[in-house]
Amino acid sequence: MAGGGGQELKLLGTWTSPFVTRVKLALSFKGLSYENLEEEDLYHNKSELLLRSNPVHRQVPVLIHNGNPICESQLIVQYIDEAFSSANGPSLLAAEPYERAVARFWGAYIDDKLLASAFQAGRAKTEEEKAEALKRTFAAVETLEAAFEGISDGKPFFGGDSVGYLDIVLGGLVPMVYYGEARHGIKLFDGTRSPLLEAWVERFGALDAAKAVLPDVHELVEHSKMKRARAAAMAAATGSD
Amino acid sequence: MAGGGGQELKLLGTWTSPFVTRVKLALSFKGLSYENLEEEDLYHNKSELLLRSNPVHRQVPVLIHNGNPICESQLIVQYIDEAFSSANGPSLLAAEPYERAVARFWGAYIDDKLLASAFQAGRAKTEEEKAEALKRTFAAVETLEAAFEGISDGKPFFGGDSVGYLDIVLGGLVPMVYYGEARHGIKLFDGTRSPLLEAWVERFGALDAAKAVLPDVHELVEHSKMKRARAAAMAAATGSD
Repeated sequence: MAGGGGQELKLLGTWTSPFVTRVKLALSFKGLSYENLEEEDLYHNKSELLLRSNPVHRQVPVLIHNGNPICESQLIVQYIDEAFSSANGPSLLAAEPYERAVARFWGAYIDDKLLASAFQAGRAKTEEEKAEALKRTFAAVETLEAAFEGISDGKPFFGGDSVGYLDIVLGGLVPMVYYGEARHGIKLFDGTRSPLLEAWVERFGALDAAKAVLPDVHELVEHSKMKRARAAAMAAATGSD
Repeated sequence: MAGGGGQELKLLGTWTSPFVTRVKLALSFKGLSYENLEEEDLYHNKSELLLRSNPVHRQVPVLIHNGNPICESQLIVQYIDEAFSSANGPSLLAAEPYERAVARFWGAYIDDKLLASAFQAGRAKTEEEKAEALKRTFAAVETLEAAFEGISDGKPFFGGDSVGYLDIVLGGLVPMVYYGEARHGIKLFDGTRSPLLEAWVERFGALDAAKAVLPDVHELVEHSKMKRARAAAMAAATGSD
């Protein structure tokens, strides 16, 4: 498999990662095909190709384009947009510099505030720590709701009438939104706090190019239960708790 | 004062911040003039204009271009490069998408690893914590030294024969490098660990467009001593230590 014009594209990833999903979304909306290489065990046994392609952070996703590795999900999305600009679907980032700066600003916000707080809630060791992290998460959701209202200006997407950079960046989180509700009863976006983003999640998830790559929520839940059960069995076997 | 073509540029900043210096460097290398608005007290009394221009992070730098506020130093540098592309000096980011991705990757590395660790060392509460943070800082310096060798490929700057994006990003740290040595006896870049970056600091700092905006190291040291003395006097007055 290859992208347009004899281009060779390989994606190193793992199917559960929102950061990898983000890159898959960008490739899907650009209509690019690629070789999908899934890491089997990121915790104990990273592939040689991953270690060679991202020696600094040793993380997925990595996109390898004609042998050149590109790392960091948002930088990969920007790369895809720049390297496959006119022939492969609409531009994700607007042409106008101020709109581009605004999109990059909120892209950073989604990772540094919203997602970072949500991950802290997931890893919290005490109920108090979890409550604090969830509070920060929902505060970030409210800020992002207001940003969406301003940027979309009544249109369906951050990109306006069609999907843009921020739709792709936030799109990687769509499976997490459904997973959080199904597994933990926590709705990241709801009709009270963020009605616009709640509607956006439905709208974005219903697009063919998104459906083609978004992981199945039921499978995410089953995978999480299996991991939890395995960890509990390990703890019981070693006598720790 | 205004930039080219009737553009109005205002910079909200503070003269001691490496992030603000970064933006001043970009403006200087592009030959753009601007109104330099210094915040007088970022800790207790932020200006109305700053709070209105960056309500999300309430931080400097903010560049206001024809009324539009742009936040986050590296995003501002990219904005300046895109908004003032051909008429105002050479491009900071290369035209080639892979080179752009590599520059953005190392730009993020400088802030997230090198600078974050250096700040942790500066704020450390114990000697052990400080030693750990310094170890991470110097590990990041070694990684960046290798990156500079690969990217510059024997040429004087990250941008090759002329200053590029990463020279501006790292350039903001040049006063910190001299300050660290003068005030704390710590050389961030030295001839053993990072001879190429040590030479780069000298070379970059000697450029007219850099000298025009880099803060004076003696003044930085005096400012730091004054702040320390004031904090000690406050602590003595309130009985804390």
